[in-house]
Amino acid sequence: MKILVTGGAGFLGSRLIQALLQPEALDLLPGHGRIVSLDLAPYPYEDPRVESVIGDIADPACLARLVDAETTVVYHLAAVVSGQAEADFDLGMRVNLDATRVLLEACRQRAKAPILVFASSLAVFGGELPDKVPEDLAPLPQSSYGAQKAMAELLVGDYSRKGYVDGRVCRLPTISVRPGKPNAAASSFASGIIREPLAGLPSNCPVPLETRLWLSSPDTVIANLLHAARLDGQALGLRRTLNLPGISVRVGQMLDSLERLAGLEARARVGDEPDPRIERIVCSWPGDFDIRRPLQLGFGVDRDFDAIVAAHQRFMKTQ
Amino acid sequence: MKILVTGGAGFLGSRLIQALLQPEALDLLPGHGRIVSLDLAPYPYEDPRVESVIGDIADPACLARLVDAETTVVYHLAAVVSGQAEADFDLGMRVNLDATRVLLEACRQRAKAPILVFASSLAVFGGELPDKVPEDLAPLPQSSYGAQKAMAELLVGDYSRKGYVDGRVCRLPTISVRPGKPNAAASSFASGIIREPLAGLPSNCPVPLETRLWLSSPDTVIANLLHAARLDGQALGLRRTLNLPGISVRVGQMLDSLERLAGLEARARVGDEPDPRIERIVCSWPGDFDIRRPLQLGFGVDRDFDAIVAAHQRFMKTQ
Repeated sequence: MKILVTGGAGFLGSRLIQALLQPEALDLLPGHGRIVSLDLAPYPYEDPRVESVIGDIADPACLARLVDAETTVVYHLAAVVSGQAEADFDLGMRVNLDATRVLLEACRQRAKAPILVFASSLAVFGGELPDKVPEDLAPLPQSSYGAQKAMAELLVGDYSRKGYVDGRVCRLPTISVRPGKPNAAASSFASGIIREPLAGLPSNCPVPLETRLWLSSPDTVIANLLHAARLDGQALGLRRTLNLPGISVRVGQMLDSLERLAGLEARARVGDEPDPRIERIVCSWPGDFDIRRPLQLGFGVDRDFDAIVAAHQRFMKTQ
Repeated sequence: MKILVTGGAGFLGSRLIQALLQPEALDLLPGHGRIVSLDLAPYPYEDPRVESVIGDIADPACLARLVDAETTVVYHLAAVVSGQAEADFDLGMRVNLDATRVLLEACRQRAKAPILVFASSLAVFGGELPDKVPEDLAPLPQSSYGAQKAMAELLVGDYSRKGYVDGRVCRLPTISVRPGKPNAAASSFASGIIREPLAGLPSNCPVPLETRLWLSSPDTVIANLLHAARLDGQALGLRRTLNLPGISVRVGQMLDSLERLAGLEARARVGDEPDPRIERIVCSWPGDFDIRRPLQLGFGVDRDFDAIVAAHQRFMKTQ
């Protein structure tokens, strides 16, 4: 048995692989099972059960080789992030749309359709939004990243309907607090305004304090990605796409949490220089969702943002 | 000035071209303007202002040549119909998705973004549907045709947002009464059960009489496609996709109209042998829509199904 993780060298992919190697995930990856990480960079840890393949996710030959008869589960996390896909339209199309199709075609060639967990995003939404986004709201992307993810969702849906793959689409909330460095995602600040001050560094908040964000901690997202592969595909019915649970928090409330848990000094490290490019993208995203269905299906959710900050503080001590 | 019509040899395309050549459409096509029909078959009429190109809609070189600096409007009607796209997945993907992208790329290369009117379909919807489909209901296609159209809609939306094209997506109702012969569309019977009996031929109704259909006459669809090109793109706001107006009619009511206008003998020519394959596709489509927005934007609608049958009877006399 084999699990393929695209984007396995990234923050989320490498954390997911570590979780899959734990005894708690033996149902997904038995002791003799292997994980293949496909990414432009090597999987950052050493483990005899992980094969790190450096390759192009949009290369059909590479995918045809990596998705073989042993492959039971595919996690498709590789993506060009929102800011970058907006700046380089063609790159975004190639990685976010074309590569997904190449991967689905590789799955289709298998006698037994693998389970595919595809990481999509709340960035598929935009325009005038209801206060709480219902399950059946039409995507209206205001970024190429969102449009590419929405198209890829439809691909996964139709390949699943045809029985070519057993797909589950998880629209991830914005993840906060991501460890590491800022990246080109428009939502990068949602981690930066907590992570940098906690590390004694300055950070900037480019959007108004009243901006609502839909957030999930890394631990909750990882647990939910594991759960997505464990679900009975039939339980999803016709709707293969799920808005993963998150918590609805205003940016000002995030900074209040920072001050409560790390003091005024930490809070004072966050500047407030607006960035219209980021604001335009981030403020087009919904700040709250109806999550009754994913909760019924057993997905988890963070308690509140204080708990998320505290978890990141604990994580910092382990580094 | 030049108008490109993909699928210009088809029933809708050739009717559209004829309408564009009328004096009433001089605003879209001035006297010196030309129309290019791109299709696998030749444009079926002779007109010095129409150039009939027989070519592959998915061929980038062909599209790059046909969408030139003179091109002000593109009508994209070429498609593999629902029944065929379900039977031949790869062909559907190539024509309904890939060719749309090739066409959008050709438009993107122009200094001034052409107006693009893209014919989509109510087949993007499926699953549990509200009695009346609102503007912002998420597509949940239950056919590959519907999935491909939904993806192409997102493409047109994002290319429009980026300013690469000035797109307008028209989700067409099922067209009844189409002249000509039955085709591979799952909805082919919606014309056949009227057209064939009126011509003295037998026909079959493969779905239950209580099935609701969302219908438009050919004349209304053509008038609405002309209107779509005349609209100010800005008037559409962020939502480039429109559910074109139709009327909600049960199949039994259609046959009542047939009997009212053509007698019991005509009605008796319609058999009732179920076809589960067609029923599965057609009954996944919505039977009614909220059309306040398209009506406000000036799109037209048929009076009732009797009027549609009567119009087809008049059309038969002209042939």
